[in-house]
Amino acid sequence: MLPTIEWKKDRVVMIDQRKLPEEEVYVEFTDYNQVAEAVEKMIIRGAPAIGVAAGYGVALGLLRIEKEENLDEEFDRIYRRLERTRPTARNLFWSLERMKKTLEENKRLSLAQLKQRMIQEAMDIEREDIETNKKIGFWGKDLVKDGQSVLTHCNAGSLGTAGYGTALGVVRAAFQEGKKIQVYADETRPFLQGARLTCWELDRENIPVTLITDNTAGFLMQKGMISVVMTGADRIAKNGDIANKIGTYTIAVLAKENNLPFYVAAPSNTIDFNVAEGKDIPIEERDPQEVREIRGRCLTLPRVRVKNPAFDITPAKYISAIITEKGIVRPPYEKNLKG
Amino acid sequence: MLPTIEWKKDRVVMIDQRKLPEEEVYVEFTDYNQVAEAVEKMIIRGAPAIGVAAGYGVALGLLRIEKEENLDEEFDRIYRRLERTRPTARNLFWSLERMKKTLEENKRLSLAQLKQRMIQEAMDIEREDIETNKKIGFWGKDLVKDGQSVLTHCNAGSLGTAGYGTALGVVRAAFQEGKKIQVYADETRPFLQGARLTCWELDRENIPVTLITDNTAGFLMQKGMISVVMTGADRIAKNGDIANKIGTYTIAVLAKENNLPFYVAAPSNTIDFNVAEGKDIPIEERDPQEVREIRGRCLTLPRVRVKNPAFDITPAKYISAIITEKGIVRPPYEKNLKG
Repeated sequence: MLPTIEWKKDRVVMIDQRKLPEEEVYVEFTDYNQVAEAVEKMIIRGAPAIGVAAGYGVALGLLRIEKEENLDEEFDRIYRRLERTRPTARNLFWSLERMKKTLEENKRLSLAQLKQRMIQEAMDIEREDIETNKKIGFWGKDLVKDGQSVLTHCNAGSLGTAGYGTALGVVRAAFQEGKKIQVYADETRPFLQGARLTCWELDRENIPVTLITDNTAGFLMQKGMISVVMTGADRIAKNGDIANKIGTYTIAVLAKENNLPFYVAAPSNTIDFNVAEGKDIPIEERDPQEVREIRGRCLTLPRVRVKNPAFDITPAKYISAIITEKGIVRPPYEKNLKG
Repeated sequence: MLPTIEWKKDRVVMIDQRKLPEEEVYVEFTDYNQVAEAVEKMIIRGAPAIGVAAGYGVALGLLRIEKEENLDEEFDRIYRRLERTRPTARNLFWSLERMKKTLEENKRLSLAQLKQRMIQEAMDIEREDIETNKKIGFWGKDLVKDGQSVLTHCNAGSLGTAGYGTALGVVRAAFQEGKKIQVYADETRPFLQGARLTCWELDRENIPVTLITDNTAGFLMQKGMISVVMTGADRIAKNGDIANKIGTYTIAVLAKENNLPFYVAAPSNTIDFNVAEGKDIPIEERDPQEVREIRGRCLTLPRVRVKNPAFDITPAKYISAIITEKGIVRPPYEKNLKG
């Protein structure tokens, strides 16, 4: 299985997702600021993967501390730097909070022991994420029947997590049972996670995948070529509204209009019980150049005005079920979603 | 005003729309086969513009005929070559039929006179298209109020017609009345007509335009940032279903879900009274490379499977009104659409 991110000899190693599928380049970081920048620049992306990166970022930052008396101040600096990388994914904050709690619970350890304990915690986050995704796959796989086709958006796969994937984890689990499955991958402008990452990782495992522009999903639904829609989530509100990659709302509306099930697969740490509904989730607005250019090539007027929100909100009413590691949650989400 | 296509000294001159907005290159053709290829390669695109190109293609082909006895056979060859360039746009066939009728009605002329008559007819098609678009603008402009924002898809502008545009003709007419209007342009993958052409032509006239990815239209509607949706059409069935650029169906569904009006602006020669409903309109499937690449740069696995329909069908039930040069047509279209 593809390692999205790893801890290796006091370094964080990750595959540079901006370069896929053209080049498989691994980058190594020794400084938590580099990890923060890697998250900002989307060298690593996907809510669960960002969570894992944040854990390792904290571990890396602590490793550099030389005097115990600087611990709290340094930890606070590290925490705040990582916290402000990307605002939407719940898993980032969940992971930072978990690292903080671990630190507080282990203050009796020596600085050297504490550093090892924190590295261990970050490695646990990584390992548990893969286990979680396999459970999501286990619960979700019966939602995809033999011979069906699955439309997915962005990359909720191995690359968006520590491994195995959420939405693509469900696809993997169904495929591994021998079901004949066909995946349609939205290319997912502007960052092209579908074209670059989803196609690449499914092709590596010989899971049949067809690439389409984001404009084409509705056409395929109209023609009866899609059986189910399955995406990940970056944050889930208490009422079941989700934030996910821009364009998710569109395919959810199209699914409803065409009477197709729309499923969300995400670990329970994506749920934010402090957020009552979707409109309270902060939506990141990214650099206009992501829209004006593709891989450095300008596609439009160099200074045209651009609106580039990275996520949108899909209201709970469009979501047929949310699949977590604990099982399949159906509406009413307000009642049925649990931590 | 920008000349999309012109007849100049026994040649057809057109702006190469594949190169915009980076380069303003004009290409000249002396052979109808070149015109046919220009349509196929989308050097010129947009249903009304394709219609004008077909008229000039016929005129160009006839110009080369040296012996009167070859006329019928040659005309037939020219007609069939142009007819098979692109299957969806009604205007192509309408224009070819008109040229054929003109030929048949003028058989008494000498070959030299007939050639001039046919050139004249093609020029009439061009001139009438601009007049038609201005009438569409006149009828449609009251549908866009002061301070409103218009979402558009693809390019139904000057470049997609002989000039002035259909959907963008309505925008122009409203803007020229002094209304403060804001246009949101879907980039329109795969060919990026929105990013490349719509932004360019609106910016030239200082009509405020904001570029978005196709994934972003739904987000803006949810946020209340879109007032009306306005597109062109490539073919209109008798019942009011329309074929238009892939992705149009998606924004029509989103408009309905967000209680926004969805308008179609098109000349009456786009209506095909021989087609009862949308599902009978042939949908062109184009080269997978258009999706795999942007401007020659591969975005995905080089051999990934692709589905690339160039158009989709928007059922009449999503369309608030169709604006033609004759006025605003409201449902029921079966009853209210006239030739």
